[in-house]
Amino acid sequence: MKQLFPPFEIPALDTRLAAQLQHRFDRKTKPLGSLGQLETLAVQLGAIQQRLDPQIVKPAMLVFAADHGLARAGVSPFPAEVTPQMVLNFLAGGAAISVLCHSNQMTLKVINAGVNADFAPHPLLIDRPVAKGTANSLEAPAMTPEQVRQAIETGAQIVHELADDGVTLIGLGEMGIGNTSAAALLMARLTGESVAACAGRGTGLDDAGLARKVAILEQVLARHPDAIAPLDALAALGGLEIAMLVGAVLAAASRRVAILVDGFIVTSAVLVASKLAPGVLGYCVFSHCSGEQGHRLLLLHLGASRPLLDLGLRLGEGSGAALALPLVRAAVDLLNRMASFDEAGVSERSE
Amino acid sequence: MKQLFPPFEIPALDTRLAAQLQHRFDRKTKPLGSLGQLETLAVQLGAIQQRLDPQIVKPAMLVFAADHGLARAGVSPFPAEVTPQMVLNFLAGGAAISVLCHSNQMTLKVINAGVNADFAPHPLLIDRPVAKGTANSLEAPAMTPEQVRQAIETGAQIVHELADDGVTLIGLGEMGIGNTSAAALLMARLTGESVAACAGRGTGLDDAGLARKVAILEQVLARHPDAIAPLDALAALGGLEIAMLVGAVLAAASRRVAILVDGFIVTSAVLVASKLAPGVLGYCVFSHCSGEQGHRLLLLHLGASRPLLDLGLRLGEGSGAALALPLVRAAVDLLNRMASFDEAGVSERSE
Repeated sequence: MKQLFPPFEIPALDTRLAAQLQHRFDRKTKPLGSLGQLETLAVQLGAIQQRLDPQIVKPAMLVFAADHGLARAGVSPFPAEVTPQMVLNFLAGGAAISVLCHSNQMTLKVINAGVNADFAPHPLLIDRPVAKGTANSLEAPAMTPEQVRQAIETGAQIVHELADDGVTLIGLGEMGIGNTSAAALLMARLTGESVAACAGRGTGLDDAGLARKVAILEQVLARHPDAIAPLDALAALGGLEIAMLVGAVLAAASRRVAILVDGFIVTSAVLVASKLAPGVLGYCVFSHCSGEQGHRLLLLHLGASRPLLDLGLRLGEGSGAALALPLVRAAVDLLNRMASFDEAGVSERSE
Repeated sequence: MKQLFPPFEIPALDTRLAAQLQHRFDRKTKPLGSLGQLETLAVQLGAIQQRLDPQIVKPAMLVFAADHGLARAGVSPFPAEVTPQMVLNFLAGGAAISVLCHSNQMTLKVINAGVNADFAPHPLLIDRPVAKGTANSLEAPAMTPEQVRQAIETGAQIVHELADDGVTLIGLGEMGIGNTSAAALLMARLTGESVAACAGRGTGLDDAGLARKVAILEQVLARHPDAIAPLDALAALGGLEIAMLVGAVLAAASRRVAILVDGFIVTSAVLVASKLAPGVLGYCVFSHCSGEQGHRLLLLHLGASRPLLDLGLRLGEGSGAALALPLVRAAVDLLNRMASFDEAGVSERSE
């Protein structure tokens, strides 16, 4: 596959400012280190933006939606028609991610990456489908190399436009009936973990449904033995929304835009992106560990042992990322607004 | 000790609405249970308020500050003068809790419960000191029974005034050099756990400092062998801010005001209150597990195995509670604003 499209050479996060940022925190009126992970988070944001006073400007939630041919194999308890229905629900403001973006002052953009439906224009909709869903990966590669290229480029372009507009942080979310299967397949192929360790109940499979899903995913993997390289695995096993997410992650890192990573499916896209460009990980804030089986293990593969939230969420859409935004805002506000010992005239430790 | 003051008879949380509240959530456009702890939280808020559409109105953070005679024994690396200095920092807007209340749209009230200083009037200050600090519990009971009564009544009265004003949720925080020692003493006495299991590094003791603190606290406990009953333990071992927090917890529960509990010290006040009136626990939302040794174990004693956040915070002030407020708001917003399957025209699971 030709690698023209977005920058796969992402420099590792430049942490030369980290010591200065931490020193700034250490002078604040609080015991050393007492803000725990919020200090780490603010230092990361400062390093991403290469400034001592990082700013959260125009935070945007990008929800990429697409359909999956594999859904026809019966890997989800919900019918595929739910994908376009939920897109309309996102646009109408009735979905969880709609409510959370409203509650947490985050701009919502819904991207039709490849839903099996046509949509009327809507201010929140970015209508850039590559196809009307993927092929069934039990029978053929989910996507052609050209579709993967186009999806990655589209995801990247959307983020470049936001970065041009001054956005300094994006949340990433997704919708697609069947996409926990695609994510589990990518995880299994790219980490070497067993399908049983990667696949979960998704929207709510029972034990029998989960066993059936595992068996189907094992068949899919066996169908594509040569899809080993990241982009080949993505094409064979992935989804259009996942490919666009890969492009979004690459572009965000290349523009020093912080990435608030949602749950299992978005994290699988980060996995793919990190195999193409390991430097992207420095730009990722892992918002939560979901209740979906496999997510915690996937996070560990990415070195993310302490995501911000662990609330048993298993909804996707970007919900965990939107919920974590106030923590990111708080971390940055603490760094930027707290008084130092000198400013406040507070005594320091006497030891 | 006479028990005239606030209502110690708190009825257990009335959960008759819980099934209706959960049913309301189950009709929302999402897989069943997929919002995890946020569903539990919204149901709790609905049960507290006895309405199917709970509301977060005028959320207020109450930070109770007081000095501790035991600080003279050298249980903290910071000097006692930091207590009044930090009160001024809260009022001036430079402290972590100031920044977090601003970021999360929470009204901050700072209560002088017994600081060893005089303060000029300030719009954020509720100046109701019972004394200029407690006695040194190595030598005498920290408080007299009358001081405890007055502190509990004052804490209760402050919450009653807020409830009269329409407040439906309070966050509770504290400041007081030496108060992790008072909290650890109360925990040890009322749970039977060892001092070593209850006492932590506080604002940053090293190993030698922690060992010294544990030895001192063991002496304090030995000094007060008969302080077994909750109010007797509170008087002998506690602090004026902790006693006011006990009153605040009791009053909030009696008024169906939700309580966002902060870290180790506030939780120790909840422990005391729950020994007086076990029903208070139904009104408590445990915002986080702090990095202070002892907090996780104390939470388990209160049946709170899954606090909302676990970010390694060990600052106090109410910081964890303020950080958790957006999660509470989000939970309530999801319950009240998400569309149902019928409203959104989304298909349900096909199994």
